[in-house]
Amino acid sequence: MPSSDTAPKIVTACVLIIGNEILSGRTQDANLAFLAQGLNEAGIRLREARVIPDDHDVIVSTVNEVRHGFDYVFTTGGIGPTHDDITAQCMADAFGVALIVHPEARRLLESHYPPGHLNEARLRMAMVPEGAALLPNPISRAPGFQIGNVYVLPGVPSIMQGIFEQLKYRLIGGDKVLSRSVSCQLAEGTLAEDLGELQERYPDVEIGSYPYFRRGDFGVTLVLRGTDRERLAAATDELKELVRNLGGDPQEGLSEG
Amino acid sequence: MPSSDTAPKIVTACVLIIGNEILSGRTQDANLAFLAQGLNEAGIRLREARVIPDDHDVIVSTVNEVRHGFDYVFTTGGIGPTHDDITAQCMADAFGVALIVHPEARRLLESHYPPGHLNEARLRMAMVPEGAALLPNPISRAPGFQIGNVYVLPGVPSIMQGIFEQLKYRLIGGDKVLSRSVSCQLAEGTLAEDLGELQERYPDVEIGSYPYFRRGDFGVTLVLRGTDRERLAAATDELKELVRNLGGDPQEGLSEG
Repeated sequence: MPSSDTAPKIVTACVLIIGNEILSGRTQDANLAFLAQGLNEAGIRLREARVIPDDHDVIVSTVNEVRHGFDYVFTTGGIGPTHDDITAQCMADAFGVALIVHPEARRLLESHYPPGHLNEARLRMAMVPEGAALLPNPISRAPGFQIGNVYVLPGVPSIMQGIFEQLKYRLIGGDKVLSRSVSCQLAEGTLAEDLGELQERYPDVEIGSYPYFRRGDFGVTLVLRGTDRERLAAATDELKELVRNLGGDPQEGLSEG
Repeated sequence: MPSSDTAPKIVTACVLIIGNEILSGRTQDANLAFLAQGLNEAGIRLREARVIPDDHDVIVSTVNEVRHGFDYVFTTGGIGPTHDDITAQCMADAFGVALIVHPEARRLLESHYPPGHLNEARLRMAMVPEGAALLPNPISRAPGFQIGNVYVLPGVPSIMQGIFEQLKYRLIGGDKVLSRSVSCQLAEGTLAEDLGELQERYPDVEIGSYPYFRRGDFGVTLVLRGTDRERLAAATDELKELVRNLGGDPQEGLSEG
């Protein structure tokens, strides 16, 4: 079923990682690669990611910029009970609505804590912008929420992942990007000219070249990505032939999709 | 030497991670945390990071936005010999100058390759925007470069780190952010009210609260950051007392600066 002459349906996303701890280098982000892969499985292309500080004005202006520029926005971080958890308030301000206690989120928290333990700080975790829908949290008691095309998730990776795995099936994606990869021990500079020529003949297949250096071993992994399985296969076959013609031994990686 | 009444000198940076492989989830970024820590050591605050695709127009417009909004910009990725290495051309276009072969970069490449091996693709690694200064590369032969306040580095972590370690000493920073951290096994919701009150009394010390969950163990790490060592020490002492008063056992982390 050749479809290379029909434009693929492209659905885009931007991820906002909210947190001073990532920008200070104290914490290595563990959410971006997970979201990138999960979105790809849902047929959504992650086109940009930003790491921004716990700063009200920066969060509000960034959200208002990217929610108009991408089909979906996913944020991580800043929805706990402490003073530095300001994401919900920022989302309310970005959308120009009030911050309210969501009745269902309140019930979830009430059922979780012993009587008397649902203090004002913990109740902050039930506060969402007016009109937001809760995102079920299978791991802990504090839900994420969705407002417009923005999905607000916690920063703790295990909890973020639990919420995302449940909401993923509700996302409406476009044509899924398929990928193949071929590695060889040729130098990039040896491959570059023929590779550029191959890329020109396959404008619908994105070819990336990634050199690697590990344990005295070096080489390059070439990644081909596109929405049309047949075109992708044809480009991959030509690439392998190209590598062989240059004296290399093309090794195809595990199928990635 | 109390200096809490004088405004700290703040120098800011933005990091641009250029690469489809990060946005596809194929590669986990390994450069951001390194740069964040290195910049902090140089007295420079990383205020934002963006991951953007290998897309000419996106790179040009993003560079032109952030180079005016931050004191320093550091980019990683896209300066190799293959067709998808478009960062140098994008920087030339962002600054409105020509892309030229830098004579010194050419000499470096000529001395590295056997006669006849410096082909057109490899010569791409000697191309920089007119007016750019080379950044010495102690690991491989392709230099990074600096144009205006933008420092262009490769994406391969070991090479990026080698170049950054050399240029770090030439960066002009401001007051360095010092940090202390205190962990305890109290729940965030138990701490939140007192913590917020402490933050209000120390507006010059940024207090972040990071819950952790590992091997059945849970608790929270509280990170205090500021430029005045005495104020930081006073806030840390008060924080430990606060934790003790709530029945917790405050454990101070290793000094981070």
